[in-house]
Amino acid sequence: MRIKTDSGYDNIKTVELVEDDGYKLKLIDQRLLPHKLKFVITKSVNEAIHWITDMVVRGAPAIGATGAYALVLGIQEGNKISRDELDELAAKIIKARPTAKDLSTFVQRMVKFITSMADLELADIADYSRKLAARSEKECKMIGEQSKHLINNHMGVLTHCNAGSLATVDWGTALSPMRLAHYDGIEFKVFVDETRPRLQGMLTAWELLNEGIDHEVIVDNAAGFFMQQGKIDLVITGTDRVLKDGTVTNKIGTFEKAVVAKQFDIPFYIAMPWTTFDPEISNADEIPIEFRSANEISHIRTKNRPEIIAPESSTFTNPAFDITPAEFITGYITQNGILKKEQLEEYYNKYMNTNYH
Amino acid sequence: MRIKTDSGYDNIKTVELVEDDGYKLKLIDQRLLPHKLKFVITKSVNEAIHWITDMVVRGAPAIGATGAYALVLGIQEGNKISRDELDELAAKIIKARPTAKDLSTFVQRMVKFITSMADLELADIADYSRKLAARSEKECKMIGEQSKHLINNHMGVLTHCNAGSLATVDWGTALSPMRLAHYDGIEFKVFVDETRPRLQGMLTAWELLNEGIDHEVIVDNAAGFFMQQGKIDLVITGTDRVLKDGTVTNKIGTFEKAVVAKQFDIPFYIAMPWTTFDPEISNADEIPIEFRSANEISHIRTKNRPEIIAPESSTFTNPAFDITPAEFITGYITQNGILKKEQLEEYYNKYMNTNYH
Repeated sequence: MRIKTDSGYDNIKTVELVEDDGYKLKLIDQRLLPHKLKFVITKSVNEAIHWITDMVVRGAPAIGATGAYALVLGIQEGNKISRDELDELAAKIIKARPTAKDLSTFVQRMVKFITSMADLELADIADYSRKLAARSEKECKMIGEQSKHLINNHMGVLTHCNAGSLATVDWGTALSPMRLAHYDGIEFKVFVDETRPRLQGMLTAWELLNEGIDHEVIVDNAAGFFMQQGKIDLVITGTDRVLKDGTVTNKIGTFEKAVVAKQFDIPFYIAMPWTTFDPEISNADEIPIEFRSANEISHIRTKNRPEIIAPESSTFTNPAFDITPAEFITGYITQNGILKKEQLEEYYNKYMNTNYH
Repeated sequence: MRIKTDSGYDNIKTVELVEDDGYKLKLIDQRLLPHKLKFVITKSVNEAIHWITDMVVRGAPAIGATGAYALVLGIQEGNKISRDELDELAAKIIKARPTAKDLSTFVQRMVKFITSMADLELADIADYSRKLAARSEKECKMIGEQSKHLINNHMGVLTHCNAGSLATVDWGTALSPMRLAHYDGIEFKVFVDETRPRLQGMLTAWELLNEGIDHEVIVDNAAGFFMQQGKIDLVITGTDRVLKDGTVTNKIGTFEKAVVAKQFDIPFYIAMPWTTFDPEISNADEIPIEFRSANEISHIRTKNRPEIIAPESSTFTNPAFDITPAEFITGYITQNGILKKEQLEEYYNKYMNTNYH
């Protein structure tokens, strides 16, 4: 992503494997954003795992790449490790955030590569981990290329949560077309839902600010108002899981925005890396919805500490995701184009039969 | 409202005129809630006005009663004041919150009473101000009596913002039927939208906690999810303004909840004191929508201080209210029953011709 500096822009990555007296993992510390940009760097696999758990890094593709790099650090620490040690290491990394599907996907691909090749050097393994991250980054950019034409001059575009560079290696998913349209000189405004409870919208605002993209942060309650007022022409969000019938699981609040958008015939697109397609769950009722801690509602994470904002004895219920049926979704933006729900399964099957994954 | 104590319940009022070495205004300091219950008391009209401006008291009927009592304090301070001085005093009080219609309604009724009677003692004026407050309180209770039958055992009831005792002299509007149903032994659960940006839902949670009413605080993003999951059977909110065609202006977010409720055929009621009816605006486009400070989004009011939660250079847009067309509203709960939109104007005209107002 681009970061404004005194002399212009710097390009930075959310997650990187750098070389400096051996391989090291370098991350943006997202716990300090949007207040402060700070990188953390480590050679220790245990520290890398701790950073995944502690949400120094968040967003499925960003966590996935971090997991692949963590495996490199673990192998570097252990020097020549046995197959059993490799499996143990992989399991330990995957356990850092058990619900993030991309974490296990990335780590398992690493293990498959390592065990299928003979006489690998650490450098070969590191190269492969970088290739996985680069592929993920490229997919994000292609999602943007495939959909930037949706954004025209003078449009208002709503997004929810953070499906930006910070959630990926770079480019983001929902934010990728916005960034590319901006580079093409299109003038538009992004309405950014703040996205309670964890306020990931503030990360989106921070990214847009750095890219110089015009935006307004709104409370989640206000999205419907701006749709009614004719200020929003297009909605693009990311996704955590897409079923064969096109049902989407995404950050809590996505469903409400989709229902109100349909009321006004505002197109609603889902930006979708192929790893979010889930061919195994056939019914929305089977989608596991994570209920997170009450503290995320009763407290708010401020610059310095979590502060209480609620009566201490009240009860709180905190679903982290919701479910949006396909009838509310205009299209699914993939690296190969914008699909209708009927095309999802075929696309996925064709994809699984290539060497890409 | 009832407050839990070690030995049971105490009854308290949001706003009162007490006698203790002259008349004094007594308020719950709502700036400290939901963290701390503290009363403030004053004999000074200027302090009373400052408390209205500073939102020690909020909610249209509560502000209205405070304004009437402030006028009593002003007359007490001035001893025998002239007609010009009375008008000046009234104008000063009304200016404390210019957008709150009930404030001017209460104060103007006081002025009308005072100027139409000869040889009034301060005690007569104080009595009249208490009568106005008592009528407002009674209307709230009747709103509850007229609608508590909507709440049955095992229901989930959603409310937005705070239309409770704290926004009125007592009983509230939307919370009045919930309180009365609870006293009748009905077992139900209230889903409380936290209501960003000012988090008035936390005041609702505090009231429900004190009344012993089962509730769950949710982020505003989650209301649609719980509707979809079949957990919400009924929605009741308050209102700031109702047009002749039934269009409702209320706290930002009300419109989104109403659209999603209609998607699932969940009844959506507006609890409506007669003073919120606006016969003058005939078109939703003419409704003035207050845009409040960016700070309400970029910062959050915690126990001790406002804390920044956003990138400092982002822009924020903060409409405080939204507009819900009548097609999304099942009925309007008044002290005389639950009305359809077609009955609103006749009801209002009949009402204006009584001596009540």
